[in-house]
Amino acid sequence: MSQVQFSDIQAAAARLQGQAHRTPVITSRILNERVNADIFLKSEHLQRMGAFKFRGAFNAISQLTDEQKACGVVTFSSGNHAQAIALVGRLLGVKTTIVMPNNAPKTKRIAVEAYGGHIILYDPETESREAIGRDIAEKTHAVLIPPYDHPHVIAGQGTAALELIEEVGDLDMLFVCTGGGGLLSGCAIATKTMLPKCQVIGIEPELADDATKSFHTKILHTVKNPPTIADGTRTPSLGTLTFPLVLEYVDDMRTVTEDQIKETVRFAFTYLKQVIEPSGVLGLAGAMNTPVQGRVGVIISGGNIDADVMAMILSEM
Amino acid sequence: MSQVQFSDIQAAAARLQGQAHRTPVITSRILNERVNADIFLKSEHLQRMGAFKFRGAFNAISQLTDEQKACGVVTFSSGNHAQAIALVGRLLGVKTTIVMPNNAPKTKRIAVEAYGGHIILYDPETESREAIGRDIAEKTHAVLIPPYDHPHVIAGQGTAALELIEEVGDLDMLFVCTGGGGLLSGCAIATKTMLPKCQVIGIEPELADDATKSFHTKILHTVKNPPTIADGTRTPSLGTLTFPLVLEYVDDMRTVTEDQIKETVRFAFTYLKQVIEPSGVLGLAGAMNTPVQGRVGVIISGGNIDADVMAMILSEM
Repeated sequence: MSQVQFSDIQAAAARLQGQAHRTPVITSRILNERVNADIFLKSEHLQRMGAFKFRGAFNAISQLTDEQKACGVVTFSSGNHAQAIALVGRLLGVKTTIVMPNNAPKTKRIAVEAYGGHIILYDPETESREAIGRDIAEKTHAVLIPPYDHPHVIAGQGTAALELIEEVGDLDMLFVCTGGGGLLSGCAIATKTMLPKCQVIGIEPELADDATKSFHTKILHTVKNPPTIADGTRTPSLGTLTFPLVLEYVDDMRTVTEDQIKETVRFAFTYLKQVIEPSGVLGLAGAMNTPVQGRVGVIISGGNIDADVMAMILSEM
Repeated sequence: MSQVQFSDIQAAAARLQGQAHRTPVITSRILNERVNADIFLKSEHLQRMGAFKFRGAFNAISQLTDEQKACGVVTFSSGNHAQAIALVGRLLGVKTTIVMPNNAPKTKRIAVEAYGGHIILYDPETESREAIGRDIAEKTHAVLIPPYDHPHVIAGQGTAALELIEEVGDLDMLFVCTGGGGLLSGCAIATKTMLPKCQVIGIEPELADDATKSFHTKILHTVKNPPTIADGTRTPSLGTLTFPLVLEYVDDMRTVTEDQIKETVRFAFTYLKQVIEPSGVLGLAGAMNTPVQGRVGVIISGGNIDADVMAMILSEM
């Protein structure tokens, strides 16, 4: 039996009520004409702190005992999970320590500090964030809440698909961006329970295609600091929890190129008037550049893009 | 009796049903904390063709007789009204000719052509767009639909405030950007009818403060090609219809600086994840930089900003 059940996602949805935004579902005539399908964009870039990560972080921290809360929480994250942990920590009065790569987007570091998170930077070329996180947890008795490989985090992320399906009803396909697979596996569990015939498709950058390779070979592949612009997907591999869930619930994994990612950021800017980060457009890039049909759900995962990165992407138009 | 009544706005709303988007009202905790008020953003940058102008254009063209439609429509516009006329022309099968300044944003020119509008460029330094428009109308029997000084256009624009108030209920203040005053006067008529105590405030760039001066002195002031980044407000003055309506229905006119306009574009980018053009943020810039209290409505008027202008604004962060 899976470590995460649909009932866990339903319980997470109840915990998130009144805490997370019930984000809007955006549609666009121009987009539908472009792909010849009906696209429904679950807009998690409009979630609190600008990404779906609030869902998993809140679902995890809110379940800690008072004793655990008193010791604080530690995590490691390339960005949005860090912000989510810091914000939820502030909301629930829990001290948070965040291990972040020293090349994380400036926007994300500033936001973590604004939420009161304590940042410890590490060098992703030479250090292991997992080891640093575990070390802090051991020394301080803080609870380690990793960015994706945790049942409460996965269940929280799955509420994005649950809400989307509650709002729009039947879907033929669902596209989900993939880093460590927390969002993908949570959304796949929700979707396959609510709409068994819906095809759930994970999308990765071609430059960080470890999950795609792992899915197709059924052997866990890793990548090391892939140079993709989609910084949220620079995770080394799927996790020990998410890999089996992806194999069980996901129908296909596909990749998109760096150019397709940037083109999709520009499309969202020009036609949707939405600010979406490169990792956040992956599902939409998949829906716009690989075969689709019928009613197609897309999880837009986040909007935290540095102004200089957006300026660079726009200057290529 | 005014040339535009609330009943005209209600009739326009009925015509627009199923044609215009009923745009969402966006709220933001960060924004509310920043200004210590409850702000409701009527998001016309998410309207068809990216601006409120669709409303007035559709309300005007859809009321033409078949004979008039067969002769086509001509207009002059710095941008969004041009797109709106071209799009509505395509939807209703009416040929459209657009007199545009040769310095209009590229995005807007490309969009007009994509919608099938025929563009005639003019030099705003040396030529009068009104004269060129009237000349074409005379020669071709096309109907001239100016960007703001037309009762059907004003009534159409007023539906933005009508929808906002229908959705959020009571408001203490409403901020509206001001170019030629079509949106402002239409929204003021709707607001003062539905919520007589609500203060309606027009916002202009300091560099293009003709309407503010006209309002305070009750004498029509004009500006010539003001160098504001808010290109939608480079109109020379209020119109013969809009000036008396502004005097009758508007409570105050205020100005914002170029820096405040750019800061507000960046705020929308960073915290709202919305792409809003400089003219489009004027109301929000007013709400963020002049005294506000209570429940405050803001009309966000458009999102058609050239990528290079946005890149320039973001690079100043």
